[in-house]
Parts: sequence; C-alpha cells; structure tokens
Amino acid sequence: MNILITGGAGFLGSRLARELLQRGHLGSRRIERVMLADLVAPRDATLVNDARVQTQAGDLQASLPALFAQRWDAVFHLASAVSAECEADFDLGLHANLDTTRRLLDACRQQTLQGHPAPMFFFSSSVAVYGSDPALPLPAVVGDDTLPTPQSSYGIHKFVCEQLVADYTRKGFIDGRAARLMTVSVRPGRPNGAASGFLSGMLREPLAGQPSNCPVPLDTPVALSSPATTIAGIIAVAEASREAFGGRTAINLPALSLRVSDMLDALAAFAGREATALVSHEPDAATARIVAGWPSLFHSPRAQALGLRADPDFHSVLRQYAQDHPDAVTLPAARARLTTAH
Amino acid sequence: MNILITGGAGFLGSRLARELLQRGHLGSRRIERVMLADLVAPRDATLVNDARVQTQAGDLQASLPALFAQRWDAVFHLASAVSAECEADFDLGLHANLDTTRRLLDACRQQTLQGHPAPMFFFSSSVAVYGSDPALPLPAVVGDDTLPTPQSSYGIHKFVCEQLVADYTRKGFIDGRAARLMTVSVRPGRPNGAASGFLSGMLREPLAGQPSNCPVPLDTPVALSSPATTIAGIIAVAEASREAFGGRTAINLPALSLRVSDMLDALAAFAGREATALVSHEPDAATARIVAGWPSLFHSPRAQALGLRADPDFHSVLRQYAQDHPDAVTLPAARARLTTAH
Repeated sequence: MNILITGGAGFLGSRLARELLQRGHLGSRRIERVMLADLVAPRDATLVNDARVQTQAGDLQASLPALFAQRWDAVFHLASAVSAECEADFDLGLHANLDTTRRLLDACRQQTLQGHPAPMFFFSSSVAVYGSDPALPLPAVVGDDTLPTPQSSYGIHKFVCEQLVADYTRKGFIDGRAARLMTVSVRPGRPNGAASGFLSGMLREPLAGQPSNCPVPLDTPVALSSPATTIAGIIAVAEASREAFGGRTAINLPALSLRVSDMLDALAAFAGREATALVSHEPDAATARIVAGWPSLFHSPRAQALGLRADPDFHSVLRQYAQDHPDAVTLPAARARLTTAH
Repeated sequence: MNILITGGAGFLGSRLARELLQRGHLGSRRIERVMLADLVAPRDATLVNDARVQTQAGDLQASLPALFAQRWDAVFHLASAVSAECEADFDLGLHANLDTTRRLLDACRQQTLQGHPAPMFFFSSSVAVYGSDPALPLPAVVGDDTLPTPQSSYGIHKFVCEQLVADYTRKGFIDGRAARLMTVSVRPGRPNGAASGFLSGMLREPLAGQPSNCPVPLDTPVALSSPATTIAGIIAVAEASREAFGGRTAINLPALSLRVSDMLDALAAFAGREATALVSHEPDAATARIVAGWPSLFHSPRAQALGLRADPDFHSVLRQYAQDHPDAVTLPAARARLTTAH
C-alpha cells in the first residue's frame, strides 16, 4: 500500500513514518511507499535512506496535483499552521488549515470517484478544540461528547475540518477518522514560542544541563501524551475497523493527567536534584492564563474501547525521552540512567 | 441604520424584513435602508413599495462586491442551499453554504478593517446540526451544550459556519450571533419536497379544502416554531447585548414539543372534523426514519434568559396562520374562526 503523510518532515510526521516503515505494514497490508509532504524536505537519515520513502517539499495545496499523480491508500494529514501563526495571520491560518484540508479531501474524493476504494484518511485534530466559551465553561472532566467551543482560530480550524472529514466519510469519499492529539511531552529540539513549550523545555533543557523556566504555578493541572503513545494512538485509529472506531465524530486520544509539580518530582527522581535546580520559577501571567484554560481531565471511553492507554506515569515519559534522544541527555545523573536497566 | 438580509426574498427573509420595517428600528437605531439579496427579487408588495427597500437579485457570492459598495450596520444571513440540494450536489452545497458565508464574513471584515464598527451579524443556523452519529446517539433532551453530530451536508455546513461566525466575532471583525432555527410550521405556499414538508402541508392543505398526507406514525414527537415566534427569536438575538447573548456559541431558539397527533387534534378543534378528514395516513418509511432522527425535546436556558418563549400550543399556531393568510383558508369551519374573536 501507498501512504501519504502531510507534515511528514515535522516531529510527529517523521516519527510516524519511521514507525510505519519499521513495522512494514498498516493493518494487514504491506507498505510499499511512504510519501512525506511538507514545506521542507525531511532530514532524518533513517527516512532519507529508506528506498520506500519519497518526499515532496513546498506549499501543500500547490503540491496536490503532483502528489495525486499517484494513488494513495492511506493519508495521514498532520500538516497545519500552528496556533500562534493563525492568531498572527488570520488569512494564512484559513489557507493553511481550512482551504488546504478541503483541497486534500477533494483530491481524495476525485480518486474515489474514479472507482478506487475510499482511502483511509487520518485527520490530526487537537485538544485545542476545547476552550471555555464565556457562556459555556468547560466541564471539570471532558468526555467524548463534550461540546468543543474553540477559543483560538487554530482550534476553530481543527474543529471545522473534523466536520468536513465526517461529511466526506458519510458520503463515502474517504474512510475518515479524526483524532484529537493531546499536548506532546517531551518534545525534542529547541525551545519554541508555544504556550505549551515549557511542558517539554522544563524537562528537556535540564536533562541537557541547561537552565529552563516554569512559568505557571506548581499545582497547575495538565494533560499530556508522550511521543510514542501519541504515535501508537494515531496508528491504532488508522488501523481500527470503522465499527471499532465508532461513528464519524472525532475521538480524544488518551491523556496522562498530572500536575506540573508531578512532572518536576519525576525529573528529580529520574535525574536528581541537580536537574530540578536548573528549573527557575519566574511566573508568566499570560502563559499561566492560557494553560489554565486547557482541559486537564478526560473521560475517553472511545479511546479505551480501541485499547488505547495513556502513559502510566511521567517517569516512563522521561525514560522514553532519554532512550530516544541519548545525545540530548548530558546531565550526569540522567546519563547514569541510560546505562542502567531502570 | 442600514440592514442587509440575505435570502431576503424567501419566506422567512421577507417576513423578517416586513417586521423590521414595521417596527422602524433595530435596538435603539432607526432603520434607514433594508437590502434584500436573494437569487430572485422579492415579489411581496409591502416590501417592493417601501421606499426604504432595495433589492439585489443573483448568486450571493457574485453579488458581494455590488452589495458591499454600501456599508452595513447589520447583516441577517438567512440564504442557504437546502438539505436536499446539498445531498444531491455536494459541490453546490459547499459553494452556496460554506464558501459564500466565508466571503460574506470577509466582506464584513473588510468593512471593519476600514475603521467602521463591527456589524451585527445574525447567522441563521438550524436544528439540522443535530443528528445521531452511530457512536454518539442524541440524548433524549437536547441542551445548549449538547454536541451536534450532523448527519447531513446541510447540517455540517451550518455547524461549520457557526464556528466561523464565532471566530470572526472573537477577532472583533463582526458582532456575530448564531441561532438555530426550529422546523417552522405552518409555512404558507405550495407543498415542497422537504422531509419536514408534511408538518406544514398536513395543516395548510386541509385549511384550503385540499387533501394532504401524514407519512409518519401519529405518536411521532416533533419540535416546531411558528413563523412569528421564529422571527421574534431572530430579532431578539440580534438586539441582545453581547453579554445577554452570552459567549459566541450558537443558541437554540425555543421549540414547541408535541406529537403529530396533537397537531391533528388542534386542527380538528380549530377547523372541525371535515379538516382532519382531508388528511390521509399513507406511511412513508423514509420520511418516518428521517423525522424520527430529529430531536424533539429541548432544554434551552440561553433562549429563556433572552426572554424567548416557544409557542404556547398548536392551536395558537393555527390561528396565527389563518390570520396571516386569510385567503389561503377556505374551509368553512376555519373561515368562521377568522370572523370570531377567538
């Protein structure tokens, strides 16, 4: 089978591609080809050197004619403009997230209308669809049937595209499944400007012997998912039968609910007090307000029914990061962890 | 103030225009001009002869440059392709409902970006956003926070446009309010192909001495709103302060919940057994299935907080129809009603 991954040069897209290529199949079908489409070409050596990998760099909407010169059995649509971009440039957000998704759905539809089976279409939605509308505050626990009232353009775009995916699926044009990804931690790489950035940086920088800041109160509740658990969720949703997925409404992927203090406790247990000593506590009211608006507790029977489970604890999340990125872990106590069975 | 009504030649659009012109103001502001934009020019004499009325006939999206040569203080966006059209022609539905609404929102946004106050923007959504997704059946009572899972392209378009209206409002481009209209009964005019058509025809035709059919079981529960109550709801939502409207999520207008048998009992009480004798009972499984999927019970505290009330009973709905359309009421027992104070 042939698989198209949009956002394929990004952190999650590349990780998804590596996982799929390593498995060699999706469901019962052997993977022949994986196309990574993104603004830039992927640099990951494992991907670049795999004969099954093709790449297409450039604006996704402009790339669609070239991409759909081939036929796709499965599409993972991860590409999107992020929250801050959408708030800064309203038209860019609508173009990148809404219009491009619509054109991609239409390209899949044309393929189906030519007589091919409707492709599996995974749409990467986000927990950012949830926000507290002034008149409709979020419930303490977000369920599969909680009404999203997005409070950002990014969240609006994701929720709108969920609806389009549902309708293209109802019409038989695609076999669509939308899943809402949780905040991913620990992300590798450099600090970014996202409000959620500290939820990775607060761990990643100290593990590399660098200082980092925690801008929110220690008792702030958050909901997280490790990269591996996130990718496992994406693949499970893509492999589920339609009956098992259940309906056409987006699913919430599982989340590990904890407090920021729990994350720092896990960091101390994993890498010692010299790690947490690198974390400063300069409050940032704007970030604290944004993060406080995010849901932190979920009841997700649909994800459970698919066999999906949240990360068991944050210690395992830190261990996963250190194993996946050994070169980025330079703090002595943390390095010692890498050489033990623990 | 200057008011633009899209779908202004339609049944509700014309009635809204007549009501606004008769009042002479919206909120505290005097109405100077009402533009009725629709595929065709309105034929209603009251409207055509009012010096404050302008008309623009043709495709709405194509008409936008001409329409926005003027500046609008308030926009009532009622125009849309209906359910059956959207199911029959997927692209037409997306064009008429999604793309046109987006262009209309952008035209308002341009006006605001030029330094004018954000116009009040009423978006006519629909109870059709509610449907039973296979995995998420509708609750018995639909509340203001019930998650819509639309099961038609029309419902998807309405729900998607609600999201866009919310985001353009959050960004300050418009002062948007989306309200979901209930099934309107009794509609005047000729039978149409809509699944809900019998909910008007079953009353309207007998009152005119004509036969009509009830295709669903008598105990089928339905939720309705008379034309006058619907228009009153639209105007109340448009006149509400933002604080009173509450947030940016769409509001459900009030509904009279009753059974089809209650409607026929009211017809018998209003116009005698000769009226109900004109109603046949040929079941239509397809229509019965569609109507059974519609929600029939609502709990709508947001509408109540705006002072909105459902029609008290179906007798008053029939009386309203007979008073508004005396020429369409020819059955002797019903005509007698028109001359009494009842």
